[in-house]
Amino acid sequence: MQTQLLIHSPGQMLEEMRAQAPLVQCITNFVAMNIAANVLLAAGASPAMVSAQEEAGEFASIAGALTVNIGTLSPLWVGGMKSAAKAASEHGKPWVFDPVAHYATTYRRAVTAELVALKPTIIRGNASEIIAFAGSKSGGKGVDSGDAARAAEGPALGLAKQLGTVVAVTGETDFVTDGQTSWRIHGGSPLMPRVTALGCSLTGLVGAFAATRPEKPLDATVAALALFAVAGEAAAAQASGPGSFSVAFLDQLAAIDAATLDAQARIEAA
Amino acid sequence: MQTQLLIHSPGQMLEEMRAQAPLVQCITNFVAMNIAANVLLAAGASPAMVSAQEEAGEFASIAGALTVNIGTLSPLWVGGMKSAAKAASEHGKPWVFDPVAHYATTYRRAVTAELVALKPTIIRGNASEIIAFAGSKSGGKGVDSGDAARAAEGPALGLAKQLGTVVAVTGETDFVTDGQTSWRIHGGSPLMPRVTALGCSLTGLVGAFAATRPEKPLDATVAALALFAVAGEAAAAQASGPGSFSVAFLDQLAAIDAATLDAQARIEAA
Amino acid sequence: MQTQLLIHSPGQMLEEMRAQAPLVQCITNFVAMNIAANVLLAAGASPAMVSAQEEAGEFASIAGALTVNIGTLSPLWVGGMKSAAKAASEHGKPWVFDPVAHYATTYRRAVTAELVALKPTIIRGNASEIIAFAGSKSGGKGVDSGDAARAAEGPALGLAKQLGTVVAVTGETDFVTDGQTSWRIHGGSPLMPRVTALGCSLTGLVGAFAATRPEKPLDATVAALALFAVAGEAAAAQASGPGSFSVAFLDQLAAIDAATLDAQARIEAA
Repeated sequence: MQTQLLIHSPGQMLEEMRAQAPLVQCITNFVAMNIAANVLLAAGASPAMVSAQEEAGEFASIAGALTVNIGTLSPLWVGGMKSAAKAASEHGKPWVFDPVAHYATTYRRAVTAELVALKPTIIRGNASEIIAFAGSKSGGKGVDSGDAARAAEGPALGLAKQLGTVVAVTGETDFVTDGQTSWRIHGGSPLMPRVTALGCSLTGLVGAFAATRPEKPLDATVAALALFAVAGEAAAAQASGPGSFSVAFLDQLAAIDAATLDAQARIEAA
Repeated sequence: MQTQLLIHSPGQMLEEMRAQAPLVQCITNFVAMNIAANVLLAAGASPAMVSAQEEAGEFASIAGALTVNIGTLSPLWVGGMKSAAKAASEHGKPWVFDPVAHYATTYRRAVTAELVALKPTIIRGNASEIIAFAGSKSGGKGVDSGDAARAAEGPALGLAKQLGTVVAVTGETDFVTDGQTSWRIHGGSPLMPRVTALGCSLTGLVGAFAATRPEKPLDATVAALALFAVAGEAAAAQASGPGSFSVAFLDQLAAIDAATLDAQARIEAA
Repeated sequence: MQTQLLIHSPGQMLEEMRAQAPLVQCITNFVAMNIAANVLLAAGASPAMVSAQEEAGEFASIAGALTVNIGTLSPLWVGGMKSAAKAASEHGKPWVFDPVAHYATTYRRAVTAELVALKPTIIRGNASEIIAFAGSKSGGKGVDSGDAARAAEGPALGLAKQLGTVVAVTGETDFVTDGQTSWRIHGGSPLMPRVTALGCSLTGLVGAFAATRPEKPLDATVAALALFAVAGEAAAAQASGPGSFSVAFLDQLAAIDAATLDAQARIEAA
């Protein structure tokens, strides 16, 4: 299996990512802009928040990967998302789709259908978001997940097979699958959902790893999630609440080295 | 009076808010997006920054409350604000208006008049903003208040009576009135105006409490302001400046429990 | 030379800036909005993020200075940038241009040409951005600088002479010139490029000092850069990574007084 070698060393992929410092084009929401850029910089990547339809497609051709998050949608931005996603596909660049609360409004459902049709390399969402793709009734309330990650594993597998993409469900335990091989990543902290836009930032980080190893999107996703989980656990040990957690989390994303990541990542075959 | 029972226990309302974790739709400015979402998450609510006119109205019908802040205005956003405010009113959801520097430009004054006509449940502003509604000459400079909160109490009372809304003036001492019953809330810290968008974030928190007790907007506002004041005081005791204050403030919003809030809130009838 | 008196005391200019608390209109990108406002508030200025073309020009006439940053561009925003820049010029207000990655896309190059034609008082960029103005091949990758600051000194001098503006190149060592007199500012920390939008925030701070001393844009720029460098050095001494650096940096911007700034600033004639 393509994943076996790499999964034994997400640390190796972290080292490669830092050596490349890949340029990641992030079209993300207004809430996530700053923290997502800081997460990528802390981890060692080079984020660029280029979203306007006047330039998003041109920029996607020079970036190493693209991430698209629909948290704060509007028609002008959707134009940028679509031209960037098309350009990424044309130039063989991986692109990651983060369908924030795509089930919540008619408009969001329509835009999501258009973006999925542009064949994302990787889809990352919370349990409610992934379950909603399967048409199941979701417990999602607004933008937060009302569903347990485990309940989303079946829908994630189905979605991965249907679209031929990697699907990541993140939550208390993460689940990643390409429809054939699947992994669970443990770690993180209950403080993480108390800080806004960490999921969106994780999408950016998945983009950074996918840019580093575009031929291995499943492994890249697992490595990104493992770094997040290990950094989250380490940060929680230093934090007194969501404010100090955020600070410690950025410090940890920068401080964790390959050996620490490999020693502390808890990844199991699913 | 409707307020007497609850004012004796803002802590009880905090417990109820956390139990409900209400979905609060925040249409706020680009500066406030992240910190407002973090304030709501830290305190125990569930924020959703849904602003586009394509979906803001539909979303307002499923949210527990709506907050509208005009800090960074543009015509497309105003369309979202108006459709959301109309939907909130139609569905009996409370909505909170934050008229940032509404006196500063012709455009801002025009938009504010349109939004006030949609009958906000609660208006929260600084002293300059509330005084400017009364047509008085204001000392406001840009978006910061040049006026003392005490000078805004008369204009606040007048505005509350005129519009039939709850009006909150926040500053060194806060003043809240529904035109009949009025309260002052003491606390906070001089570091709070040195951190951007805390007032905008407080507007979001007022929305969270109003969603919890939509039938008691005055009490909900007082409880939100009391939590902010107590958390601000506690954070200032740990801070060395505006950076460390922000971190401690989010930690305190999450850490303060009902008993602590009731013990430390300083609320007086005005 | 105009600069000699003031350069001996950036601290004096800091005191003047804090006494005035100038209103600085910042048209900046979505990533920088929050941190730029916090940097200005911490340092003692009064930021206002007023960008829409419906009001940006009117507001520029009441602000003390304007800053324009093209990090996240779109046609509607460019309209606001241009009307604000025109109004600033008409009313004799200094305006600062921050040409983020202006070489990266066709759209960005076109907008930059339009803005430069509106005669900014000061241009602040990283080495790649300033070198690209000279038409040289740049090592810039996305929005981060791939070039050493020293290599940009010649292009900066040329640009300053050509446009009659002050040009600041910031990086490991900063370089500021009006085409005649030039200064280097040492300090800061390698953690600063690991935190997003600090350069954009510095542009805002240059605006605050330029508003304080509009007749001395070169000195104002040097004073702003010196404060940033001294605060960065002090913050790095307390930080464990990019997260804790940001927190300490805001604290230091507020804590540093005139005497400390004068004692620790390392400015040399170039």
